[in-house]
Amino acid sequence: MRENIIGRANVEDTPELKAYYKDLERYEAGALWTVANKIEPWAPQSVSVPVLWRYNDLREHVLRSVELVSPEKAGRRVIYLNNPGRRDVSAAVGWLYSGLQVMHPGEVATAHAHSASALRFIMEGSGAYTIVDGHKMTLGARDFVLTPNGTWHEHGVDGNGSVCIWQDGLDIPLVNALEANFFVVHPKIQQDESGYPVDDMTRTWGNPGLRPADSKWSKGYSPMFKYEWEPTYDSLRKYAAATDGSPYDGILMNYVNPITGGHVMQTIGASMQLLRPGEKTKSHRHTGSFIYQVAKGRGYSVIGGKRFEWEERDIFCVPSWAWHEHGNASESEDACLFCFNDLPVIEGLGLYREEAYGDNAGHQSVAA
Amino acid sequence: MRENIIGRANVEDTPELKAYYKDLERYEAGALWTVANKIEPWAPQSVSVPVLWRYNDLREHVLRSVELVSPEKAGRRVIYLNNPGRRDVSAAVGWLYSGLQVMHPGEVATAHAHSASALRFIMEGSGAYTIVDGHKMTLGARDFVLTPNGTWHEHGVDGNGSVCIWQDGLDIPLVNALEANFFVVHPKIQQDESGYPVDDMTRTWGNPGLRPADSKWSKGYSPMFKYEWEPTYDSLRKYAAATDGSPYDGILMNYVNPITGGHVMQTIGASMQLLRPGEKTKSHRHTGSFIYQVAKGRGYSVIGGKRFEWEERDIFCVPSWAWHEHGNASESEDACLFCFNDLPVIEGLGLYREEAYGDNAGHQSVAA
Amino acid sequence: MRENIIGRANVEDTPELKAYYKDLERYEAGALWTVANKIEPWAPQSVSVPVLWRYNDLREHVLRSVELVSPEKAGRRVIYLNNPGRRDVSAAVGWLYSGLQVMHPGEVATAHAHSASALRFIMEGSGAYTIVDGHKMTLGARDFVLTPNGTWHEHGVDGNGSVCIWQDGLDIPLVNALEANFFVVHPKIQQDESGYPVDDMTRTWGNPGLRPADSKWSKGYSPMFKYEWEPTYDSLRKYAAATDGSPYDGILMNYVNPITGGHVMQTIGASMQLLRPGEKTKSHRHTGSFIYQVAKGRGYSVIGGKRFEWEERDIFCVPSWAWHEHGNASESEDACLFCFNDLPVIEGLGLYREEAYGDNAGHQSVAA
Amino acid sequence: MRENIIGRANVEDTPELKAYYKDLERYEAGALWTVANKIEPWAPQSVSVPVLWRYNDLREHVLRSVELVSPEKAGRRVIYLNNPGRRDVSAAVGWLYSGLQVMHPGEVATAHAHSASALRFIMEGSGAYTIVDGHKMTLGARDFVLTPNGTWHEHGVDGNGSVCIWQDGLDIPLVNALEANFFVVHPKIQQDESGYPVDDMTRTWGNPGLRPADSKWSKGYSPMFKYEWEPTYDSLRKYAAATDGSPYDGILMNYVNPITGGHVMQTIGASMQLLRPGEKTKSHRHTGSFIYQVAKGRGYSVIGGKRFEWEERDIFCVPSWAWHEHGNASESEDACLFCFNDLPVIEGLGLYREEAYGDNAGHQSVAA
Repeated sequence: MRENIIGRANVEDTPELKAYYKDLERYEAGALWTVANKIEPWAPQSVSVPVLWRYNDLREHVLRSVELVSPEKAGRRVIYLNNPGRRDVSAAVGWLYSGLQVMHPGEVATAHAHSASALRFIMEGSGAYTIVDGHKMTLGARDFVLTPNGTWHEHGVDGNGSVCIWQDGLDIPLVNALEANFFVVHPKIQQDESGYPVDDMTRTWGNPGLRPADSKWSKGYSPMFKYEWEPTYDSLRKYAAATDGSPYDGILMNYVNPITGGHVMQTIGASMQLLRPGEKTKSHRHTGSFIYQVAKGRGYSVIGGKRFEWEERDIFCVPSWAWHEHGNASESEDACLFCFNDLPVIEGLGLYREEAYGDNAGHQSVAA
Repeated sequence: MRENIIGRANVEDTPELKAYYKDLERYEAGALWTVANKIEPWAPQSVSVPVLWRYNDLREHVLRSVELVSPEKAGRRVIYLNNPGRRDVSAAVGWLYSGLQVMHPGEVATAHAHSASALRFIMEGSGAYTIVDGHKMTLGARDFVLTPNGTWHEHGVDGNGSVCIWQDGLDIPLVNALEANFFVVHPKIQQDESGYPVDDMTRTWGNPGLRPADSKWSKGYSPMFKYEWEPTYDSLRKYAAATDGSPYDGILMNYVNPITGGHVMQTIGASMQLLRPGEKTKSHRHTGSFIYQVAKGRGYSVIGGKRFEWEERDIFCVPSWAWHEHGNASESEDACLFCFNDLPVIEGLGLYREEAYGDNAGHQSVAA
Repeated sequence: MRENIIGRANVEDTPELKAYYKDLERYEAGALWTVANKIEPWAPQSVSVPVLWRYNDLREHVLRSVELVSPEKAGRRVIYLNNPGRRDVSAAVGWLYSGLQVMHPGEVATAHAHSASALRFIMEGSGAYTIVDGHKMTLGARDFVLTPNGTWHEHGVDGNGSVCIWQDGLDIPLVNALEANFFVVHPKIQQDESGYPVDDMTRTWGNPGLRPADSKWSKGYSPMFKYEWEPTYDSLRKYAAATDGSPYDGILMNYVNPITGGHVMQTIGASMQLLRPGEKTKSHRHTGSFIYQVAKGRGYSVIGGKRFEWEERDIFCVPSWAWHEHGNASESEDACLFCFNDLPVIEGLGLYREEAYGDNAGHQSVAA
Repeated sequence: MRENIIGRANVEDTPELKAYYKDLERYEAGALWTVANKIEPWAPQSVSVPVLWRYNDLREHVLRSVELVSPEKAGRRVIYLNNPGRRDVSAAVGWLYSGLQVMHPGEVATAHAHSASALRFIMEGSGAYTIVDGHKMTLGARDFVLTPNGTWHEHGVDGNGSVCIWQDGLDIPLVNALEANFFVVHPKIQQDESGYPVDDMTRTWGNPGLRPADSKWSKGYSPMFKYEWEPTYDSLRKYAAATDGSPYDGILMNYVNPITGGHVMQTIGASMQLLRPGEKTKSHRHTGSFIYQVAKGRGYSVIGGKRFEWEERDIFCVPSWAWHEHGNASESEDACLFCFNDLPVIEGLGLYREEAYGDNAGHQSVAA
């Protein structure tokens, strides 16, 4: 790792130095110049690789888990996405976990709480629900729901619903890396009836430009636990009529905590993005790790010089500092990408940086 | 103003003291004990009185102004509401101004800016619009629009609209009292075409739980300049399904700045309130001055022991620390009250205080 | 008040209009164009006038109050400063009150609380103390102490001290104007022994760049109730070594709430300012009302074109939007000005505006 | 990793499942129940171990580096502390790096910037200085200085100084883990003369309860780059006179950003702690990783059931969720511990949790 540049380490091994390094080891110490260039890189080099997970590939395997394990034995029947560069921490990209969970009508999962923050994005089925700290929410396809850090939460599917599959997104790898993860099983296995009306948090907090006059909320996450698809899609189209959009992202809106106007949770942000018919964005790169799920339509993304074709319900990731651009393959329909990411961490710690791809009119050349 | 209570001033005039007071006057000074009990009252005693302004009374006079003065001569054709206790400062209550403005199709008002913050609530007519710093907004009945402190703004009615009347609410008396009011006529009399799409600010910022990902806004007021009636009423009904409401106010939501979750402007707050069919609230009182406009339905309010019957488009005020309660006169329809107030000032300066009316099951006795 | 300018009211009285105005009065209303130019001035025109109160003039009168009234009868023996333009609200300038209070050794004032925020700046004497919500503070000359909005507070002078005089500064006129003033006498007349060490709040919060690790404070005012002269003067000199200072104010530091870095109280800000030997500042003007007390040295200020010579313990005021500049009359000693003001109100409500005096090298011409 | 508890994974391997797991691997996926109990632990189990680095052991090796490598070749001559559990990321504990750097009189290091945040705590020597974004600071023993995220910084020792050794603390491992580290060598190798007075930032911002009136600072870190020992120690003693202290930490103060009252940088917090003569604290544990340097005195800490005796300049670490308690070995002198940590990360992401050691009167039993 020697570099012949002023300010960088460039020390040749000598017998004397090797002996010195041995001495240092005895005191749980080392010489910085032996690792300096490695631990102070010129720019981030992600160990995650870009991956596309096709729903067509995974769906049958997700469904097979129902035959193979009971929910009681498995805890939850989930197939998680395992980035080839992050198998040691079971992450889909960076420090983010993603899994596909399946539940049959009438099933209920046990209630628990953990320090990790979680979200769900519904892929298919009807009758699913989630209960967060006593607040029950009904869930349809493309709805987005939070189960934040420290909350009691449980999932289920009504007896008269259909088989449901959703994506679970969590920061488990990050919270483990920070050595701050706690897990508790609910003492009664299931939460009690709370008396809150169904969907009360969205009805209370999910209103445009209005807020209960006597509202108090000081927790670090959004009280609007559920963000429904229809008003979300409607918002994107309204905003599209008022903006030129971003050259890199088209029409991109963040899901926000209505109390602060900021990210929905302290460690995970989420967005929904609309690519207009025929829209092809330019490439840029930035710090932070990103998991996308195709909410609508079909298209492609070029990530780190590799092209991935996607359609509805496919999942793909963009590692930190990887060039990426997106395209809508349809000339008549819009395409929508749901995304969750670690931007609250990256921004909150002052580590966000962004760069436009300058060459080739902003488009990467794609490896053959 | 003598009071025989420990800690209060209780000094009798004597010839010696009178001579002393004369001496002090020569040095632009006085003896505190001669004014202490007056300037340190036990509780606020508003100089404003409760008033109900009936739209039926005022409408014809507002319309007459069109015949009597030209917009060029008058600046704007506005009838302002003059609280009997606040005629010296042309206030409707406390330090808040209110006026009813009329405009005919095809008329335009000149553009200007001032340190005072302003709002409009549309009473009747079609085709009205407001332009704030280049952002044009179309306005229908019961829409609520901001023209904040320091913004260029102008109003007009389209040639194919109808006669429009709206309520203007401002903090002119407050800003004058604070000796901080500036006024500028726009150098071109009318703002230029800006290129912003019509209603862009509401389409951009008026979305439930979503916000443009690259948004930046650091001004002290809401970028969502217009709050439309339909989503507002819809929000109240959704919230009503999730809450028991307030014993004093029924279903009360504040219009908020989506960036902060707080008040829409730095000096004026606003709310919309729904009284359910047959709902009769209990009395309470609090600091701050309030102007209500009936947005929907009919009912009554008891303010300071006096009962006022109101119907749609009527305006009434509640002075600081006056007991007040509201009732919906219909058993089948809900009633809605728009309100603007000085709560951002009162709360921001640490002066908010509230008290429930304890006697008589929470209801004031009304003077015969 | 007619003005022949586009956008301003310019309506001639006619018999018809006069009749119309009469009609409007019957409905507690008026025509805006009859008052518009008055209530929407081009710029603020303060009703306060610049005044200098010489300590030499006032001191004997302050001391005489001791012979003339007992503390029991007077509540407190205070001579308040009465701006000729603000006698109706007993203000020294704008909405700020100022008074000189005297106490003899062994005297104690009764404890009370009010919605108004208060401060004291010690002028002379030894042995004074203030108790705020149980926290006792010893006070020497030029110490600055807060008794914020809603706190129980009482003053006294130790039996072995000397006659003490201090300036009291309050926002009583503002809180009265906002109709939000409450006053309570302490139920036990005097606060109980609290067990807090003397001067604990300053020892806890008055440390440079350090703060108790487990500290919690969410009130709207600074927990550092007392700001002592010596570290204040020391800070000014340190800062003077690191800055060129302001052309308008020399070396100007705000007293701050260590929790927020902002103003010490929600309605009153305070600062200490050092004019270097021979320093003569340039004129500027801004919104907000200001009361100065000379803490050290002698010099002059030109306010609104009038020159005032001051020396230690003199008090003077600068009304809103009045041009002002200051000069240190000594070529060898520095001069210090304590100041309190309504900047938290003006800034918090978005009403601060500032302008440099451009003519005559930045210096006003002084009326002969 | 199977656990026979409701809500936990408890699935036996079967041939069918093994085949299924193979299938999943082909799609970069896995079955959650095979890793769930591992990635969702009941409580954090740090991979770092408690270590004490004795200055007496390390000092000679630090000095030897001067003979062994030139600053040009080494970049900087630093011996870093290598936790046995964290050798893969060159961390002293958790995601924190620590190193001992030596410089001879007349030496200068090259200027650079990086995304990692850094601090120095001076161990011995005179004449050291640091320049941060053009602001030069002189440094004496026990002074604490920041070189925050993104700032240009360089170090040196004056020609007439002595050999200097200091501790460098950084979040390099964290910023690398977050894949957000950038490194830039200053284009001119050394920063230019800036014209700022020496130590200007501390003189400007390091004042108790006072702040420049016209100050603006919006960066994510403290503008008070240097915190000197003398006022720090003085503050601890003042605070000690006003508080009973914490049962777990004695007199503990955080170094703070005077703008926000919060942590000095976005990723690293720092504190100084005073143990009164004879003080023995009780044990507690909390999330977050901590590196201590003994600033004064001698004593011991029990960390994770192991006792470490320390004296001035020794360094030790407390891993996340490890029980720890401290004792001052002197009955007459106080002892002081400097500490830096990742609390801004842990707290900012909502992951702080704390627990008192309940047994044995709060004291751990120590392994023989």
